[in-house]
Amino acid sequence: MQELKERIAKEGKVLPGNIIKVDGFLNHYIDTELMDHIAAEFGRYFNMDEVDVILTAEASGIALAAIVAQHFRKPMIFAKKAKSDNIEGGLYQSDIFSYTYKKKVTLLVSKEWFHPGDRVLIVDDFMANGEAMRGLCDIVEKAGAKLAGIGCAVEKGFQGGGDRLRAAGVNLHSLAVIDSAEPGNIVFRED
Amino acid sequence: MQELKERIAKEGKVLPGNIIKVDGFLNHYIDTELMDHIAAEFGRYFNMDEVDVILTAEASGIALAAIVAQHFRKPMIFAKKAKSDNIEGGLYQSDIFSYTYKKKVTLLVSKEWFHPGDRVLIVDDFMANGEAMRGLCDIVEKAGAKLAGIGCAVEKGFQGGGDRLRAAGVNLHSLAVIDSAEPGNIVFRED
Repeated sequence: MQELKERIAKEGKVLPGNIIKVDGFLNHYIDTELMDHIAAEFGRYFNMDEVDVILTAEASGIALAAIVAQHFRKPMIFAKKAKSDNIEGGLYQSDIFSYTYKKKVTLLVSKEWFHPGDRVLIVDDFMANGEAMRGLCDIVEKAGAKLAGIGCAVEKGFQGGGDRLRAAGVNLHSLAVIDSAEPGNIVFRED
Repeated sequence: MQELKERIAKEGKVLPGNIIKVDGFLNHYIDTELMDHIAAEFGRYFNMDEVDVILTAEASGIALAAIVAQHFRKPMIFAKKAKSDNIEGGLYQSDIFSYTYKKKVTLLVSKEWFHPGDRVLIVDDFMANGEAMRGLCDIVEKAGAKLAGIGCAVEKGFQGGGDRLRAAGVNLHSLAVIDSAEPGNIVFRED
């Protein structure tokens, strides 16, 4: 998606440790107009008539997922994050490793809000190692729901999370895949 | 707002400790159509031509704030929550007490995304003791920005947070104020 790539190239910051900050429009200060363009772009890759619900993980995915869901008149669920082993019942849960927090995090969704056979589109703002995506896919499977696909705005292609999901047969579309990133030189994968 | 009150009365659950769960439409499973109606209702109370940016706090306020911001074509900022005393520079921050987590939480917004004089509308899904709102107001003041008002979906009126803000002269509008809550009997304040 050209508009997104241009914003990343212009405003993204590359920090030590291959961290790419895009918090001026995607995940701290949110450019809602751009989010709505991203929603429309997802509509080119996924048949939204065959999607029942949008799923994301707190916190930074929520803004994009909410606008995508609203754009296509779908409900939205966000998985909560717990940093405890002491989880109450009535929840689908999946343990992931958070590279941000350097520890295990549990993704949780109340069983009340999933129905077997629900067709689920996962939406997230950012993917690196793909741990959050893996956990969300796990929850979809545990719920007996059907994964329609994954729509991701920005993927760090060089960390491999997206390619592992593609190799596993997941219908994943990222709108900007970054193949390498150094200060002043962000290289995108060809569409 | 009649539609919101009816949903709370019909689907809200009152748990021990005066906890009111509305996570079937407001803050876990999100009814985006209702969120858009809430956005339109805020437009009756606040002059959106005089609002530059929408501010909320992670995580549960983000979905509503994103849809409100998108409805009125505004950008949105969400304050991040840190559970550490070791905060890096370049941030506006405010310490609040989280009744959910029973501990101090620090709200953080990067200084980059606020500009002195910005007219800020705070939006949140839920208010009880008003600690998150107090912290967000504090950040607006520290940034030299101007508080246009606070739009809240559901307020637990009997916990006093909203009334304290009103008494302090804040332009606060909650679309459903709950004055008492027992299982099967949720009483709303008259508009």
